[in-house]
Amino acid sequence: MEKLQVSLGERSYPILIGPGLLGDSDLLVDSIPAAQVLVVSNETVAPLYLSKLEQALASKQKRVLILPDGEEEKSLSTLSKIVDELVAAGFHRDACLVALGGGVIGDLTGFAAACYQRGIDYVQVPTTLLAQVDSSVGGKTAVNHPKAKNMIGAFHQPLCVLADTDTLATLPEREFSAGLAEVIKHGLILEDAFFCWLEDHIADVLTQKPDALTYLIRRSCEIKAAIVAEDELEKGRRALLNLGHTFGHALESLSGYGKWLHGEAVAIGIAMAARTSMELGMIKSVDCDRIQSLIIQAGLPVTASGIEPDALIELMHIDKKARAQGLKMVLLEGVGKGILHNAPDESILRNAIQAQLTG
Amino acid sequence: MEKLQVSLGERSYPILIGPGLLGDSDLLVDSIPAAQVLVVSNETVAPLYLSKLEQALASKQKRVLILPDGEEEKSLSTLSKIVDELVAAGFHRDACLVALGGGVIGDLTGFAAACYQRGIDYVQVPTTLLAQVDSSVGGKTAVNHPKAKNMIGAFHQPLCVLADTDTLATLPEREFSAGLAEVIKHGLILEDAFFCWLEDHIADVLTQKPDALTYLIRRSCEIKAAIVAEDELEKGRRALLNLGHTFGHALESLSGYGKWLHGEAVAIGIAMAARTSMELGMIKSVDCDRIQSLIIQAGLPVTASGIEPDALIELMHIDKKARAQGLKMVLLEGVGKGILHNAPDESILRNAIQAQLTG
Repeated sequence: MEKLQVSLGERSYPILIGPGLLGDSDLLVDSIPAAQVLVVSNETVAPLYLSKLEQALASKQKRVLILPDGEEEKSLSTLSKIVDELVAAGFHRDACLVALGGGVIGDLTGFAAACYQRGIDYVQVPTTLLAQVDSSVGGKTAVNHPKAKNMIGAFHQPLCVLADTDTLATLPEREFSAGLAEVIKHGLILEDAFFCWLEDHIADVLTQKPDALTYLIRRSCEIKAAIVAEDELEKGRRALLNLGHTFGHALESLSGYGKWLHGEAVAIGIAMAARTSMELGMIKSVDCDRIQSLIIQAGLPVTASGIEPDALIELMHIDKKARAQGLKMVLLEGVGKGILHNAPDESILRNAIQAQLTG
Repeated sequence: MEKLQVSLGERSYPILIGPGLLGDSDLLVDSIPAAQVLVVSNETVAPLYLSKLEQALASKQKRVLILPDGEEEKSLSTLSKIVDELVAAGFHRDACLVALGGGVIGDLTGFAAACYQRGIDYVQVPTTLLAQVDSSVGGKTAVNHPKAKNMIGAFHQPLCVLADTDTLATLPEREFSAGLAEVIKHGLILEDAFFCWLEDHIADVLTQKPDALTYLIRRSCEIKAAIVAEDELEKGRRALLNLGHTFGHALESLSGYGKWLHGEAVAIGIAMAARTSMELGMIKSVDCDRIQSLIIQAGLPVTASGIEPDALIELMHIDKKARAQGLKMVLLEGVGKGILHNAPDESILRNAIQAQLTG
């Protein structure tokens, strides 16, 4: 097991990474010290891993809430269900929520913890690669608004994160790949060497070689943690983590949530951001090709179909990263060098989007 | 105009107190610098004061949301309406919410600001005495759960507070008195001298003599600000501000929100807490009498009817201030000396409650 500390002063917390964590009762009890615990999970994950967690937490006053699987649950009405459960149980401020599942369960449960009695503890047990390398760091919690993702939320750091790499064995290939989109992004914005490592080891990663997996999760979390530690509330540098997300969120919104996995939309978004950077002369075409090639090798899309470029551009302007003074977006000055940049002329955006469309 | 700074590091903000603030366009524009502004108000307050605010904000991209008056609006579904409005307007992270109204509008709007895009600015323009002396300090925002008040919320400090004392002239007497409950509480928990000043000047306060009013609001905010500055997230000393509230919330919950104004329930709660303190030998009966006498002179109730003591005690245990390790409550060791205390035996609680029941 490896341990990584996310440094945020009083709100610092550890991420534990490795195989077999869910089978380690002592570790679980140490990590979840509260007497009152509500475990939130979904119908896909609960049958696989809930019993292990419940055994370890046998001594607690414990409740379990199992939700349907899917992004639609990231809503105010599901938040309300979690609060109903907490109130019905008579849980106090010392209670702890445990999120057992992927990003949806993590974001939703984290936001419930942020709001319940104005903030209680929560522990994340992410069971997807995306949640392990991305939502595990940074304390972003939220639910969706029908018209825009993550519109209602809070920054609320977990008490700790338990990333059991064994849980990835049951993850569908497509979701595993989706997680790799954020991993590639971490390399692209900050660390050339990690991007090169990914190019060299993509085969080991896809076959889930234990060492490759542990290294990948740890380095990915470290890069994100370094950025978040500098800028917890996303007032500056943290915006780099949005590479591919301004395009990606707009793509998801335009296509209806559900067509693409979030990571797939981000992958296409990264390809569009790389293409935009190339059109602006910020990166060479050979780097743009390398980026697209790694994304494809990771089993991810770089193109979309059935999209109207102007509709996408319009949606990008209501994305929450678009500030009143005009749209900013993350572009690349090279592999490992992300930069927050004013949005280019719409004609350039349109070309870059068009280049990633098929059919 | 007087200016008081609430000291909370990066989250410090000023409270401006005095007559005529809403007529001062320059002051309003300085205090609300955002280009995008959503004013949230209700059907009672808007006809009285909205036009002044709108004139001052004429240069802004501005929206107005007018809600029905009443505690029922402190709900997740009304929060959702505010977010709908913000999304429909395409408002960004730099937008600012303005809460024009009493505690309900302030708590709800503040929570919407805390959640929208994980936190945007808001300015409070409190138009009730309660909101001016209480919710203006401390950054507590929330909506209610059907079974318990303020269950879903956040700590989110405003950008500034504009307490225009002129607005109190249109406040019903009963609501003015309700605000005095919190003022009396501030004296009781921390400052004997302020409590004595209230005993000496209650007539001037009730007739809204300008000097008395300004002094009262300022001192009340100062006392609360001093406590909040020491303990922003209510992990210790800030709990003193809950004097009367453990009883009060349970009373409101038992009677259905709406029977009493919040301040009235708190007034009865303070009387019950004083009585409990006396039963425990912590204060003399003469002090208990002084406290009840001032509450009555302020136009507030000290007794309830139609209440079952055991039902009240049971509800107190699910109040959010009741921690997993057992119910704590604020009691008095003297006038001006609040203390966080383990709840006494139920027999003592039952006696203290019984003593404040009629009929």
